[in-house]
Amino acid sequence: MQDIYPSRCAAEPEMLPRTDPVVHGTWTEAAPLTRAQTEGFERDGFLVLEDLFSADEIAALQTEAAKILADPDALEPETVIAEPGGKEVRSVFSVHTQNRLMARLAADERLAGVARFLLNDDIYLHQTRLNYKPGFLGKEFYWHSDFETWHVEDGMPRMRALSMSVLLAENTANNGPLMLIPGSHRNYLTCVGETPENHYRTSLRKQEYGVPDDQSLAEMAHRHGIVAPTGKPGTVIIFDCNTMHGSNGNITPFPRSNVFFVFNAVSNRLERPFGPETPRPEFIAARAETPALRPVSGLLTGELV
Amino acid sequence: MQDIYPSRCAAEPEMLPRTDPVVHGTWTEAAPLTRAQTEGFERDGFLVLEDLFSADEIAALQTEAAKILADPDALEPETVIAEPGGKEVRSVFSVHTQNRLMARLAADERLAGVARFLLNDDIYLHQTRLNYKPGFLGKEFYWHSDFETWHVEDGMPRMRALSMSVLLAENTANNGPLMLIPGSHRNYLTCVGETPENHYRTSLRKQEYGVPDDQSLAEMAHRHGIVAPTGKPGTVIIFDCNTMHGSNGNITPFPRSNVFFVFNAVSNRLERPFGPETPRPEFIAARAETPALRPVSGLLTGELV
Repeated sequence: MQDIYPSRCAAEPEMLPRTDPVVHGTWTEAAPLTRAQTEGFERDGFLVLEDLFSADEIAALQTEAAKILADPDALEPETVIAEPGGKEVRSVFSVHTQNRLMARLAADERLAGVARFLLNDDIYLHQTRLNYKPGFLGKEFYWHSDFETWHVEDGMPRMRALSMSVLLAENTANNGPLMLIPGSHRNYLTCVGETPENHYRTSLRKQEYGVPDDQSLAEMAHRHGIVAPTGKPGTVIIFDCNTMHGSNGNITPFPRSNVFFVFNAVSNRLERPFGPETPRPEFIAARAETPALRPVSGLLTGELV
Repeated sequence: MQDIYPSRCAAEPEMLPRTDPVVHGTWTEAAPLTRAQTEGFERDGFLVLEDLFSADEIAALQTEAAKILADPDALEPETVIAEPGGKEVRSVFSVHTQNRLMARLAADERLAGVARFLLNDDIYLHQTRLNYKPGFLGKEFYWHSDFETWHVEDGMPRMRALSMSVLLAENTANNGPLMLIPGSHRNYLTCVGETPENHYRTSLRKQEYGVPDDQSLAEMAHRHGIVAPTGKPGTVIIFDCNTMHGSNGNITPFPRSNVFFVFNAVSNRLERPFGPETPRPEFIAARAETPALRPVSGLLTGELV
């Protein structure tokens, strides 16, 4: 199979055209997004949704996240990732298989319904995690396109996936919020350097391969600017799989925390990785043919009693 | 002499009252700040001044700063500080003794005149530097009160000093701008832990002593909030010697750069350090009895031709 998005195989980075749509569906009055929201996602590669959840639902999610972080020993050890050089939990992967409320949230109509519309297909969870950036010492997360990694290391064939970050703590301008380069999703920036085997063990702490080059990043940032959406808990940031993003460190006392879901179209299930021989493990990149997500409506808090 | 601001000598941090004024002068119609600006500085511990300099003056300062950074070998080696773990220049100390335009800027009526008013005394330069936070890799600068260090390590007796940061690049919310805790200057937070001899050699790269504790910082930040003034080149941020401040790292391609002057009242000249025996070197903390600054009026660019 020809690799239309080759990366980490040439000596120089290249800006390739994106050959896949951004919005795969066609907007109608029945769509779960307004026309302006749909066009905004197409143009910018991201979209912010506010007030999707009730105060009770948000409180329930925060309580549940705190419980998960308070007892990492109850989790599959390999799914718990610590800060570089520290012991504080940075991410818990596969959070939907380890917690009922998080699974319920991922399947919620308000999220999964939007993902189905934008990807115009049945969907499944490619990756999920609970992210926690502690105050005082939270480290940066360097710029990257998720698709570059998912393609090279996981074998995701096309750009037909997206991420949703549900904020569990307030994102301010100062606590290391997610930064995005609007419009960066419209091209595919290849990276230089091969991928070592079992790279994921270190890359989840600190990225060293699949890193975009300075010059291309500077060009993108000068052309498109950088935005860092702020928002209160419950805010949802949706971004395309190829949108360049990253985050600065956080010396403020205010931690940052979010639940992160990657929805992939079932027609875009993983194949053999385009880079290394060995695919990354299931908890980082789902290969098992799990059934498509069935969106669930109603309050998150409804079924927990 | 009794130490009214003891720090790094007790096992627990303490929040002591400030016994010195913030604005030492009395506002009149003739003051170089408006009444509202003066009251704002008194209340918040900082003040932002815009449009003090012409476009030509700002361009001249930027050109001069680029020249200084481009040729570090022309500088006194000990005044050049690199990024932690890197070679990129982070700061050039004593920039006013090594560059005529920077000396002229420090003495400018628009800066020195304001410092004389707020400190209500003749003034001299306690410390000057050119700061450069490169894009992509700029590291954080952790929270601190300058006065705590100047008092313990340099022997500055009282709170009668202030800093001015003249922006040479745009400060955005995303490129690791200076963050301040408004109102934090009204108390003195003591730090825990002794100061090793010659601490300055490492502290200029990475602070390990004179670091405020997490709990006090969290209390301050929750009570007062955190602000990060943004501004175009030429913007001046004035802050009191005891205002808690710091900055996050910077993964954006946009570097941050500023010239930084510390004005001290001549009545507040350095004595023996309150902490270690050996004072820090002259290029970091001026002890020599240099004459008071004589404010100069007119354009910066006037005398350079």
